[in-house]
Amino acid sequence: MVYTEALPLTPAEIDARYAAVKSVAQEAARLGMDYYLRRQSLAVMHKGDDMQDVVSIADKEIETFIRAELTKRFPEDGFLGEEGGADDLDARCIWVIDPIDGTSCFVNGLHNWCVSIGLLVAGEPLLGAIADPNHDELFHGCRGRGAFVNDTPLKVSSAQDVREGVLGVGTTHRRGKENFIPFLQGLLNEGGMFLRNGSGALMTAYVAAGRLIGYYETDLKSWDCLAGLVLLKEAGGRVNDFFRNDGLLHGNPCLVACPGVYDQVARLIGPSLDQD
Amino acid sequence: MVYTEALPLTPAEIDARYAAVKSVAQEAARLGMDYYLRRQSLAVMHKGDDMQDVVSIADKEIETFIRAELTKRFPEDGFLGEEGGADDLDARCIWVIDPIDGTSCFVNGLHNWCVSIGLLVAGEPLLGAIADPNHDELFHGCRGRGAFVNDTPLKVSSAQDVREGVLGVGTTHRRGKENFIPFLQGLLNEGGMFLRNGSGALMTAYVAAGRLIGYYETDLKSWDCLAGLVLLKEAGGRVNDFFRNDGLLHGNPCLVACPGVYDQVARLIGPSLDQD
Repeated sequence: MVYTEALPLTPAEIDARYAAVKSVAQEAARLGMDYYLRRQSLAVMHKGDDMQDVVSIADKEIETFIRAELTKRFPEDGFLGEEGGADDLDARCIWVIDPIDGTSCFVNGLHNWCVSIGLLVAGEPLLGAIADPNHDELFHGCRGRGAFVNDTPLKVSSAQDVREGVLGVGTTHRRGKENFIPFLQGLLNEGGMFLRNGSGALMTAYVAAGRLIGYYETDLKSWDCLAGLVLLKEAGGRVNDFFRNDGLLHGNPCLVACPGVYDQVARLIGPSLDQD
Repeated sequence: MVYTEALPLTPAEIDARYAAVKSVAQEAARLGMDYYLRRQSLAVMHKGDDMQDVVSIADKEIETFIRAELTKRFPEDGFLGEEGGADDLDARCIWVIDPIDGTSCFVNGLHNWCVSIGLLVAGEPLLGAIADPNHDELFHGCRGRGAFVNDTPLKVSSAQDVREGVLGVGTTHRRGKENFIPFLQGLLNEGGMFLRNGSGALMTAYVAAGRLIGYYETDLKSWDCLAGLVLLKEAGGRVNDFFRNDGLLHGNPCLVACPGVYDQVARLIGPSLDQD
């Protein structure tokens, strides 16, 4: 409640959107699961030249479903999505959607993918939900109201050194790949260990949940992390200046971490984290 | 049946062990799940100096359970396990057990861990089961009889280049770390992408299932991969000379891959893969 007075939304308007994001993410995840279980018969298209960066029919249909459900409830809101692009970005509220985060996992039959829906209000992430149907987990949170997995409150790790836990990592062939290997070498040199499960949204949520001590990706899109950033902040985590230079539209390097290891990991990454 | 005639086991003895490995792995996984769901109240001990290499009480209790169940059925068989060490390695049949593969995931609340039980007969992996209770998947196989996930036959990927799929990777602080970073750099340079989910046994099973195109670990223990190697071979995959120089007892670098990418990945790793 501390934050809401500064926002152009009434508490009731926030309540409605928080309730909606949870139920729509869950429904979208169930829809995703239906596709996932019959994925081998789904036609798959390739996006760009990268064979890894596949997107299934499911991805588009689920984003269409999410937009339709939210438009029905909040016709004045805008959208930014991985598949459908930007729509009415001048709106007071902008839903930022990744219908299937972890499409490579989805297509290959690995089990780390999720639906991520965040809400941006006055340029700041306000609330969000990440639904993981493979593990029956709904991560959700709202600024000033805490963050949860199902009904359990989230809290970041108390680790003080990278040796005390596992760090999520990732890179892409699109951008920032050159900043990955030296960082990883440094992490191993300092006794740290990494994990890459294939879903940026889930790894962000796992940092909020204290399962990972942090997560670094050389080039993340805003729809991959916006919902997760709400959870992260409510759970006591730190994040770099992700939204600088049109990060919302074009992405940026992203580091989220528990406070005890943030500076250590940022040092291992070096200046590329917050410079262009 | 092609293979069994050369083995010092009758088909009936193989049948009994194949049936047992599946049911004992499933029961052990259920036991693991009971511990996992109340992991936060479990006391955790650290093994050696590596904070990542934690082992829970569950790990030991589950290995004890598995040994007791198998000894009851096959009192003449020997054992090699992550927790309990070696026992009667001159026996005709040696069960090679990892009670919880992916202990770091288990302890941190990540969902990629499993129970792995393989059987070595006359120095060769004969059969095995990998039970993943988080995803209701039982991977199992027997030489000459195929490999399966639940009831679905496994088949490795048809990828011909690392760009066509995702490669599982891993390293440890114990040994071989220096062979990891140059390999990973080469993989990214050639357009490949990696995943590390924290469980070597599951990543090996995923290669057999065609979900990953391969899996390279700089220093794997035999209990991490023995069951998986049975699946892999039955599913048409290739593996390096893992058992050379006492690999059974001390571990070795391990590469498993579909035939279309094995040589490419082996080249990226370089001579350390099959040299000491």
